[in-house]
Parts: sequence; C-alpha cells; structure tokens
Amino acid sequence: MLYLFIVTNIFYLRNRLVSIQLTFFMQKNTVPVGIGAMAYYVPSIYLDLKDLAPIRQLDYDKLSKGLGVLKMALPDVNEDAASMAANAVWKLLTTYQIAPESIGRLYVGTESGVDGAKPLATYILEMLNSRYNAQRGTDQQHFLYCDAIDMTFACIGGVDALQNTLDWVRGGENRTGIVVATDYAKYEKFSGGEYTQGAGAVALLVTQNPRLLVINDTWGVATQSEHDFFKPKFSETPVFDGQFSNNCYQQRLQTAYQHFKQQKVALGEYTPTDLPSEKWSQIIFHLPYAFHGKRMFTEIFTEERLQAPHNKQLSKAIGLTTETLPNNSLAELTKTVAKSEYYNSFVKDKIADGQTASSQIGNMYTASIFMALMSSLAAKVGRGEDITQQTIGFCAYGSGSKSKVFEGVVQPTYKNIVSAFQLFEDLAQRQAIDTATYEQLHDKTLATPICKDKGKFILQNILNEPVTLAGARKYSY
Amino acid sequence: MLYLFIVTNIFYLRNRLVSIQLTFFMQKNTVPVGIGAMAYYVPSIYLDLKDLAPIRQLDYDKLSKGLGVLKMALPDVNEDAASMAANAVWKLLTTYQIAPESIGRLYVGTESGVDGAKPLATYILEMLNSRYNAQRGTDQQHFLYCDAIDMTFACIGGVDALQNTLDWVRGGENRTGIVVATDYAKYEKFSGGEYTQGAGAVALLVTQNPRLLVINDTWGVATQSEHDFFKPKFSETPVFDGQFSNNCYQQRLQTAYQHFKQQKVALGEYTPTDLPSEKWSQIIFHLPYAFHGKRMFTEIFTEERLQAPHNKQLSKAIGLTTETLPNNSLAELTKTVAKSEYYNSFVKDKIADGQTASSQIGNMYTASIFMALMSSLAAKVGRGEDITQQTIGFCAYGSGSKSKVFEGVVQPTYKNIVSAFQLFEDLAQRQAIDTATYEQLHDKTLATPICKDKGKFILQNILNEPVTLAGARKYSY
Repeated sequence: MLYLFIVTNIFYLRNRLVSIQLTFFMQKNTVPVGIGAMAYYVPSIYLDLKDLAPIRQLDYDKLSKGLGVLKMALPDVNEDAASMAANAVWKLLTTYQIAPESIGRLYVGTESGVDGAKPLATYILEMLNSRYNAQRGTDQQHFLYCDAIDMTFACIGGVDALQNTLDWVRGGENRTGIVVATDYAKYEKFSGGEYTQGAGAVALLVTQNPRLLVINDTWGVATQSEHDFFKPKFSETPVFDGQFSNNCYQQRLQTAYQHFKQQKVALGEYTPTDLPSEKWSQIIFHLPYAFHGKRMFTEIFTEERLQAPHNKQLSKAIGLTTETLPNNSLAELTKTVAKSEYYNSFVKDKIADGQTASSQIGNMYTASIFMALMSSLAAKVGRGEDITQQTIGFCAYGSGSKSKVFEGVVQPTYKNIVSAFQLFEDLAQRQAIDTATYEQLHDKTLATPICKDKGKFILQNILNEPVTLAGARKYSY
Repeated sequence: MLYLFIVTNIFYLRNRLVSIQLTFFMQKNTVPVGIGAMAYYVPSIYLDLKDLAPIRQLDYDKLSKGLGVLKMALPDVNEDAASMAANAVWKLLTTYQIAPESIGRLYVGTESGVDGAKPLATYILEMLNSRYNAQRGTDQQHFLYCDAIDMTFACIGGVDALQNTLDWVRGGENRTGIVVATDYAKYEKFSGGEYTQGAGAVALLVTQNPRLLVINDTWGVATQSEHDFFKPKFSETPVFDGQFSNNCYQQRLQTAYQHFKQQKVALGEYTPTDLPSEKWSQIIFHLPYAFHGKRMFTEIFTEERLQAPHNKQLSKAIGLTTETLPNNSLAELTKTVAKSEYYNSFVKDKIADGQTASSQIGNMYTASIFMALMSSLAAKVGRGEDITQQTIGFCAYGSGSKSKVFEGVVQPTYKNIVSAFQLFEDLAQRQAIDTATYEQLHDKTLATPICKDKGKFILQNILNEPVTLAGARKYSY
C-alpha cells in the first residue's frame, strides 16, 4: 500500500493559520511477487543424436542445425516424474537454504502423472520429508500445512501452477510457494517425435519481493479445444500430429500475444503502436525442440511490423518499400523474414540464449519453458552481461490447446541466484549411453540402472502386495 | 478499500480556529469473493440399494440407517466425467443467464480424467462452445480467452480449484470464473466400496460480491502422503483401505481444523476458547457416503469440548462431572458422545441437511462436498428457514492425503439462487434400473444407452482412426 499526503492549500488570515487542506492519495496494494530462485534436475544419462540419426536414417545436420537438437536426456530405470521433481525441489531448498516449514504450497505441473487420484505432489513431499528426517534425526511432518496438488494441461500445466501460486503469494504476508514442472517426453520409437525426446524437472521458488524475477499480473490467454497432441487413457506415449500442432501453437500464441498487448494498452503501460517483442529484452518459449520458438514466432514478428511506424524498418530489411509491402501475402513475407538478417539478429539477441539448454536436454514438456529461462539467464551471467531491470517475455503453449503470454522483470539481486544454477557446468558432467542401451531403456527390458551415482531420489520399487497397496510406489535416497 | 476520517482534535484560540487534527484509518482492500451460483448434473439412472443389498448379502438396514446410503447414481453408457461436467456448467450458464464470453476461467477438479495430457476442461469448453454456436447460428470461439485446466488430488481437487479461482477473482475487476467438480466413483464389484458408488458434477460460479456465499481467505490445511486410496496407472477403480482411509480423514481434518482456528485467532476473529463448530450454523463435509461426516467429526467435537468452559456442557451431557471427565480416554468419550442426544441434536441441527442429497446419489468424489452444500441450502430454503448471514463451515478431504477447512457467509440474495437448484425436485425424476442392468453397465457389456432423454451432452464415440486421432473423444448434444 502506498500513501501520499499532499498539502494542497494553506489559508492564513491576519497572519494566523486558519485551515490546512490535505489531499490523500492511495495506491492499491501492489506488492511485487515472482520467482525468487530456481533449480533443475536432468537425468544423468543421455543419448547423442549423432548416434541415433544413422540407425533411424535421419539427417543429423537437419536435426542439429535445423532443429537445434543435439542430445536427449533419458530417465534411468529407477527414475520417474516424481523422483525427478523431488530432486529438483531438494536442490532448490538446499542450494538457497530454504526451511521446509516455510513452504505453504507445492504445486506440480505435469503430464507424466503416475496415478489417477494421488498426485505426484504427495510423492514429492514424502521423499523430501523422509530426507529431512534422515538429516535431522527426526520423525516429523515438515510439510504438514503445505498445500499440494497436480495441474494438468499438456506442456502448459507448470505455467498454470505458477500463475495460481503467484496469486496465492500475493494474497498474504509470509507466503512462500514452490512450483515444480516435471515430465518425461517419451515417444514411440521410429515416430516423428522420437528425436525430440527429453526429460527433467525445474523447480521455482515463488515469493513476495522475489530476488530473481518480478512477474506482473497481466496474462494473455487463448484456449481452443484441439487434438493436436494427447494421451488417451493415459498411455505413456502421445497421439499427435506434428504439423497441425505447429499450427495450433502459432494460432493460440498469436491470440494470447494480442490479448496480452490489449491489456497492457488498457493499463496505459503500452501505447497502441508498442510491440511486446521490442519491449522485451529476451523471449522465452515453450520449446518442444530447441529452435521451435524462433520458427513459430516469425509470423507474429512479421505481422506486427506490417503496421506503421514499424513497416519502414521491415520493408527496408527485406528489400521492399512500404508501398510494395502490401502486395505480398503474410505467408510470403514470413518466409522472407525468416531468412533475413533482420530476423536472425533479433533471434540472436532475444531468443538464442534460451535455446542452448534445450539442445542439450531435449523436450521437457512442462519444464521446457522454465529451462529456457534458466538457459537464457545462465548464458547472460556467464558472459557477464548486466540485465538488471530488463523485461523478459514468455510465450507458453500446451497442446489440447492453450497459450499464455506474460512478462517478468529481472531484479538487481539476480546474479547470485543465477550463478547457483550451475546449469551448463552440470549438464557437461552427464554420461552418454549407446543406442543399444537406449533401445533397451525405451523397451523397458533393462533390469538394472545405468547410472551408479548416489545422492539422489530414486524409485525403489512398486508394490504388488498387500492388495490394499498394490501399485504403491516406494522411493528412496 | 475502506476510508475513515475522524476529527480527533480541534484547537481554538481566542474564538479562532487554529488547527484541526485528523486521523485517517484505512483498511486493506477486501472485496468479497465467493460463490455466486451453483448447478449440478446427476445421471438420470440409479440403482436402489434395496435391490443391490440382497444379491451382495448386505444388510440393507445397515446401509440405509447406518451409512445413510439409499440410491447410487450411475453414468449411462454414453456418459463420462467430461459430459457430466458440461451438463452441469451448461445448466449453470443458462439457469443464471451468464454470457459465455464473461467467463475468464474454467477450472476442473476431477479424479476421473480421460487423458494424461489433454484436460477434461478442454472437452467441456468444446461441448459448450458447439452448443452456443448451434443456438446462435454462429461459428465462433465463445471461450477464446478462457483459462482452463484440470486439478487432481483425489476428492479435494474441486476445493483446490475453488480456492485458486477465488484468489484469481479477488485479484482484478470483472473476473468471473467457473469451477466444476466431476467424477464417477466406480469400485470393483463385491468390493467394500461398491455400495458407496455414485456419479455426477457440480458447477460453481465464482465472482466478486457473490450472490450466494462469501468465502473468506482463511484456509486450514493439512497434508501427509498416504496410500489410503489411490488409482495406480490410472486404473478405473481404486486400490483402497477403508478403515485406514477413515483414520487419515480424521487425522488430516483434525490438523486442518486446528490450523484454521489458529489463523482465525491470530486475525482476532476468534477468541482462543471459540469453537468453529459452534460458530458455524452448518458444517459441510466431503461425503464418501451420507453419514461419513457426522461419524468422522465426533472425535473433533469431543476433543474441543474437553477444555473449559465447554467441558461443563460436555460432562453434563454425557453424565460425568468436570472432575471425572479426564478419567476417560478420548476414544471412550468419543464413543459415548456419538450415542448422546447432545451430539445427535448437533448433527440434526448442523450436519443432517447436507447428507440428504448424498443418500440419493452416492459418492461423487470431488463433487460430494459441493453437493452437500447444495443439499443443505435447498433443505433450508425448502423449509422456509432464514439463513442470511449465517456462517457455514467446510471440512474437505482428499485421499493421498489432504484436508482443508474454510468457511463462507450466506448472502442476503441466496433464496432465488437456491430455489433455482431444483435439487430434490429433479432427483425425484430419475429412472431406477434393475441389478442385471447394473451388472452389465458395470461390466461395460451394455451396447445402447438406457436413458432415452434428449437435451444433454453425451459421449458420441471414441475415434479409432486416423492414427493421429486414435482415442479422441467426440461428444454431441
């Protein structure tokens, strides 16, 4: 709450004070909320696309240079979405020294649930709690008052969990929440999705006066029911139509982007000719594969620059005049823009840093957009760039289908937070597996875990008995 | 925002005004939010427990008089959680004449999802949208900017969706949301859960300045990972341990109830000796079966009355003195209280009206607690009781496990809203099926729908081809 008291009039009569007129201004409570810290977990094993490409008759250059796909992270035999998420949250809590008792909610975004009723969130709390008890020699519930749930909408469930947790944190003092996005993007072998596979989890600390990123409460939204990608009856691999899904991604994003801008203009924060993509220093996308965002965004980029005063720059950049520009269809112009130095330098400036981690990991479904944020921040800090108070734009998408567009402002305290990610350093430590092992892993014919690392949460076993516990999952550390 | 200006001092000197001292009070923005309207959908067919009891060698008197279980609603061949929810939301929108374009979010609480990635919420929007298009002769997206998602935590997912939607509605003007809880509580035949089966959906309109119930932002929460009831690998029927689940329900509720009270005391809204159960005019429970709430609550009821000054009334009611009271264990006292007229009149007063609909429907999982609210309100209005400004307490539970306790205040405009429920009137119109038909329905060997009613959303078919749509669900009206 901001209070302003202004003395607007003072009346004197015969040198004597007669009255003071005060005007009071009050501004609605706008305590900043956002992301205070982040941590990730990616499996320790990966398959290099250099190895997969030849046995699938795929052109490695197309994968690596066309799509930006280099390596795919794969969950080991004893890993699932719950254990990966627990590892990410544990890293978040310990790296940034957060007391478990201070966490008021743990919200999970996932499309890799393991149960129709019992949420992953409870398995995660169980793992964390047992670890705290082991460390402290206690037998307590450290998360007794912690709200927990799973939210599902394909790849956008983590963003939904974040938005709702921001609302909750804004609503009261001393509220701290954790959002964790966790998934295993598994596709049928030989399918068009196989080379985009990946896995992992990203955990976010959501707080008032966050140390990393303030997120404003302006959300562009677009929803339309589609079957571009879905998992009927909870099958492990999805049914999908890649080209159609690209169209859905573009169309929903276009609508959400305009919806976001409309609200910003109505709030007086943008003028009608402002372009979000110019306001933003970075654009963070949901990335099914590394170069997906930059490929999908070309049309929006082109279309919003067809209007004056931006059309001058656009027409010049692609060798047209503002008079000849309208003679071309949006599709033609978009193709031309995609190849232009104009767009390439935009990508290099605002999108490329977000792609780097995706190339090393593959698709993380709900966690992809948050990993793109970590990737962008880690790259900037790695190069020593100062991004304080810069505005980052987010373009989220979930098949089925929904897009959300929002923005965040980098806080002056970001450097220490980002340095602790150890993102590219840790990704470089993983172990490659060969294609024969990959096939066994995919087919579930591998009996023992590949990775021998200790010090992480793993799936111990799934009970068969007693009958009242058949199917219960047991985890250990 | 509430502003109070109080003149606290006026100084005069020689009959001349010298100064005026003003004190300003401001109160934080507390725009009331809550439930503006409600609507339900329950399948048109039901099985009478009178018919099931003999073929399962069950004592009908125990079911009907001991548990309050009389009829179980059963989804027809062409119904699922999505179609039931769409029917409830459609009734909400049309009964209360709400424009679809005004709805900013549709949040679904369910443990009967049909897909691992694509939420029920999108199927619901698709059905509603096509109906609006058919009615209006349009081909538009009426819910283009509507946020939508599924939230899963066994039976408490609908309450979680409500809490989050209340936060969202509170955060901005002109925000209207819908929460819909939808489930089919299906158990294995011959299992201990079979006679508690039920199905249906309840939709809630969430608004600022609601016409039905204002819900305050005080939430008691208790979470602890358990396997009292779960659905591994999304099996249609659950794995559960009934007695253990009762213990979990009681323990989580106890903790959440105390957590709720602590916050109320800290806010100065309750004194430390206030009892929530005395403050509340009605207590609304999650009801796996009709009498579950009153059976589970006895221990909390007893324990909170062991302290002075309440112990005088308790001891008198069960024939002890405040000196002899502590000689008995809580378990003993609870048993005695359960049989006492003291507790029975409490139940009759504050719990019984919430049970009535459950007896007619059975377990609705996520929708049970909201149906209990509709039942209580409809009973009061039916008898012409005035409940304006009365406070209703809610005791929510979801296996796995979590409890939430919160309260709402009945608004002066409630009568017209509740009259439009047509709850008991419509429940009386359903069609009974015989046990042979029930068995076929349960076994999925019935080819054609039993109910011939028109004018509702139904599952038309599930596609097998093309391969990019295998498993896609198609609905019609």
